[in-house]
This record gives sequence, C-alpha cells and structure tokens, in this order.
Amino acid sequence: MTIRIAIIGYGKIAADQHVPAIHGDPRYELAAVATRQGDPAIGVPWFATPDEMFAAMPGGLDAVAICTPPSVRHSIGADALKAGLHVLLEKPPASTLGEMDDLGRLAARAGRALYAGWHSQHAAGVAGAKAALAGERIAALDIRWFEDVRKWHPGQQWIWEPGGFGVFDPGINALSIATRILPMPLFVRSARLVVPSGRQAPIAADLDFGDRLAARFDWRHRDGEQWTISVMTEMGKKVELRSGGAHFTIDGAEQAVEPRGEYPSIYDRFADLVANGASEVDGEPLRIVADAFLVGRRETTEPFE
Amino acid sequence: MTIRIAIIGYGKIAADQHVPAIHGDPRYELAAVATRQGDPAIGVPWFATPDEMFAAMPGGLDAVAICTPPSVRHSIGADALKAGLHVLLEKPPASTLGEMDDLGRLAARAGRALYAGWHSQHAAGVAGAKAALAGERIAALDIRWFEDVRKWHPGQQWIWEPGGFGVFDPGINALSIATRILPMPLFVRSARLVVPSGRQAPIAADLDFGDRLAARFDWRHRDGEQWTISVMTEMGKKVELRSGGAHFTIDGAEQAVEPRGEYPSIYDRFADLVANGASEVDGEPLRIVADAFLVGRRETTEPFE
Repeated sequence: MTIRIAIIGYGKIAADQHVPAIHGDPRYELAAVATRQGDPAIGVPWFATPDEMFAAMPGGLDAVAICTPPSVRHSIGADALKAGLHVLLEKPPASTLGEMDDLGRLAARAGRALYAGWHSQHAAGVAGAKAALAGERIAALDIRWFEDVRKWHPGQQWIWEPGGFGVFDPGINALSIATRILPMPLFVRSARLVVPSGRQAPIAADLDFGDRLAARFDWRHRDGEQWTISVMTEMGKKVELRSGGAHFTIDGAEQAVEPRGEYPSIYDRFADLVANGASEVDGEPLRIVADAFLVGRRETTEPFE
Repeated sequence: MTIRIAIIGYGKIAADQHVPAIHGDPRYELAAVATRQGDPAIGVPWFATPDEMFAAMPGGLDAVAICTPPSVRHSIGADALKAGLHVLLEKPPASTLGEMDDLGRLAARAGRALYAGWHSQHAAGVAGAKAALAGERIAALDIRWFEDVRKWHPGQQWIWEPGGFGVFDPGINALSIATRILPMPLFVRSARLVVPSGRQAPIAADLDFGDRLAARFDWRHRDGEQWTISVMTEMGKKVELRSGGAHFTIDGAEQAVEPRGEYPSIYDRFADLVANGASEVDGEPLRIVADAFLVGRRETTEPFE
C-alpha cells in the first residue's frame, strides 16, 4: 500500500532532502504540499496552510512530514494526528520537552505513527559505530562540533532568539548521534554557555557529562568544519565518527559505512513505523539541551554582528 | 511490617518535617541518619556518609529519605537503589531531567519504590481543588508566587549559582500544585527570566502557558507572602488555592481541607508505594522549569547584594 504523504513547510530542507527521498522510495507518493511561502512548483496540489490541506483532501492523505520551524511543529503535529495522519517530524521534534511529550501522548491516543527523524542518526557511519560500542564500557567521550555560523546560518536572526538554541542547533545533531551510539545515558553535570553580548542564545558551549565525557560546540570556527565524535572504551578501543557521522574508524582504521543517504534511511524507518502504527521519539537529544540550559553557567562574550 | 528508614542529609527540612512525620506514623521506624554535618542527636545511629551507613547496616534498612541538596540526590539515590532500598526524594527529585529519568530506570530495574515527594502537592487544599477541577475545561490560570528572598533564603549563595534555580526554587512548588490539580498539561510558550547583574539564576520569572494561562514568580516582594493559584473553568467556576495550598475556595466560598500535614501525607503515600514496590515520579514540575530555561528570554536587573 502506498503511503500518500504531504510535506508541511517547504523550505530548503524539504526541497533538498525530503522530496528526493520520497520520490526515491516506491512505498511513498508525494500527494500535496502545505507551505506559507511561494509555490513549490513540483506538480502536486499545494495549500497555504495545513488546515486548508486537511479540509481539501479528506481521505486523500496518510501521513505528513513537518518541516516548518520548530515553534509550530507541536500545533501542526497535533492537528495532523487528530486528522488521523501519521507524522514525521524534522529535528528537533518540538521547541520544548512539554510539546514533545504531548505529541507522543496524542499519537498513542490516535493510534498513529509518530517519528522524530534526527537526520544525523542516519549518517552513514552511525549504525556501524553503534554496533562497535554495543556492550562496551565507555572510558572517554570527546565531541567537537565546530563550524562557522556565518557560513551555515547566513543572516538568520531567529537562531539568536529565545528558543532558537544558538550553537545547539547544530550541536543537537552531535547529541543525537552520541545518544544513539553510546551504550549508556549521558547526564549533564555542568555546562558553560558563551553568549554574545545583547543576544539570547549561545555562540559556543561546553558540556561536561562527568569524568572524561565532554562535548564542545563552537560557531566561531573559521577554517572549515570539524564535526567529530571520539569514543574510547575501557578495553582501549577507539571509535571515531568524522564529518558529522559520514565516516567512522576503529583504532584509526576506516570502516565500511551504510551507503544509503540520511533521508532515504529516515523514510525507510518511517514506512516501517507507519505499517505498524508504532511511534519512535528519541527525546534524549532535546533533554540534554534543556538540562544544559537548566544548569549551564552563562558567560558573556563580544557582540555578534 | 515496619519500614526501617534512614534519613540522608540532616538539615532543617529533615529535622522539622521528616523526623516528626516518621515518628508520627506507626508503619515507620527511624533506623539511622547519614549526614555530613554534625551529630543529629536524635537517639539513632548516625553516619558521616551514606556508604558508611549501607556498609554498617546490611539488612538493617528498608528505605531512605534523601534530604541532601539536589545536586547529589542522583548518585545517593542510585547507590540506595543498588543496595536494595526504597527511596523517597525531597523536592526537586534531581538537579536535571536526565538524572531524574535515570533514577526511574534504576528503580524499575531494582524492583524498588521510588517516590518524588513534592510537599506542596500534599498541602491541605490540593486534593479538594483537584477534585473540583476534574473533567473541567480550563479558561484561565493565574499563579502568583511572591516572597522575600532575604526572609526565606537568608545568606544562601547556592540558589544564585547554575543549577540553583533562583526563584524557581519556591516557584517549582507552585508548578507542582498546578500540574497536580489541572486536568490538562501545561506547555511553556514563552518565559521571561529576570536575572540580577552578576548572578546566574533569576530573581523573578513570568511564564506564559498560552492564552490566559500564566505564572509569575517574584523574590522581590517585601510585604509578606503571596502564594496563590487561581483557576477559572470555561463554565465560570473559580477555584483558588491560597497560602501555598493550605486553603482553597470555590467561587469565593471557603472549602473544607485535608487536616493532615504535608509530610505525614507524603509518608502515607510512600508507605503504600513501598508495600507494592511501585514508583511515582511526577516529572512535570521540573520539566516545566527546564522548558522555561530553554525558551526563556533573559533580562538583566539591578545587582542583588
């Protein structure tokens, strides 16, 4: 049975990633788009709002992929579940833990699939790294997620506002990988949030998860990107993910990775969940960010212009 | 069967509330105290650390009440559960959501009772207010939790540090009542955190839970205390808790309240949970505080000396 899916919120991530993944998977049919801005011009019905789409297509949809900004995902997701649709959420699944938990309750009540699609968890090296760490005791974790905010978020103002997460917007990708591959939970023992003068959100952050377990995020990195996660086991095995999870090594030796892309993998998993009416919402990455804001020490740094 | 319970962390709340509640309930026997500072001098064995107590009393304890500062509750609670003991936690149950969730997992694995004792949920008017709101649709919520920090936290510096919660230390009591009595969950839509210059934690906070649902916490109140929660239903019924939940009214008329004190009620509930090896951890109050830190807008105000 084909899953007739609509995309809600047609920005760059929808056009670049969701549409090709849907078109590339024979289990899906892209049935509509609801988006506030512009005509997606991709040959399917489009609507200005989700409500108009739900009203115009009764019985014509099975699922939605919500690619809007995080702040409206909860209300749109709630409406979609009430309309009897399965829901795929871009990352992060909601702007608060309360909204995320509520979507889980609503999906359970509606008997529909809810899937929080953390795309970095589907990076090529992640499944292999997880397998390599299964059952191990972890001696050290070193996350370094360094990039240039001017390159990756040019002109975006909302990332500096309350709820914009600042450097945790990319950093949560690293956390989504770490919580996926590690055989134990991570607890924020302390954190340092470096906030530009006059801004609300951090431009850099250090998280301490206890002895030799740490993450560093920095948006002030000028020379390319560094997106690495290094894990050392108590037995002395070193597992390292590089390039945001695209490559991984064990004790320095390059390992074979999953050739399928992140979004095809997300849609593959979502099709399984839809078939079973089951949900999968990994709340740990957002929980860790909230804990970092809760116990983090704020330091003010120079203004960001 | 008597529950042989030890108190861990013997400060003011332990001496003033836990000891009388334990002595007043025939199901309990106060078997020991573990505390870092001083001799509690209450006629039971005392130990400098929980570890010494666990080692010295194998088979001699059934449960512990953890009244230490929040930052060490997770590690002590984990040790107690591993030692096969039931655990009662003072509020808040942990310093982060991650630690709170982990204690829940550990208790389930150990088959022991874990109870997060939010004392304000046991205030005299709360059960009646909850019954009065059951099944209602809520039109408005107005929480006002105003007190003088100099009166209630004289000389305490840790409340201003990261993880000290600031005005949320009393404010979480209001949130614990609200999540208990309301028939629907609360979502933080936005928040304003007013932080004294040079401090980390807020001295005042406003939380917006959506249309006509709000909470205001303020530690700069000089003229007595105001600890009130007013709820208006869509049918026009007004339920109000005053004096931190000790009194409640319906449409202005004073209602009968539960005469038992907060802590005797906590210990009553804990005895039931111990008897069944069941756990009860209401994570909503801490979740709301974390969401407020996550999406809150920070404003700097005059220094607090």
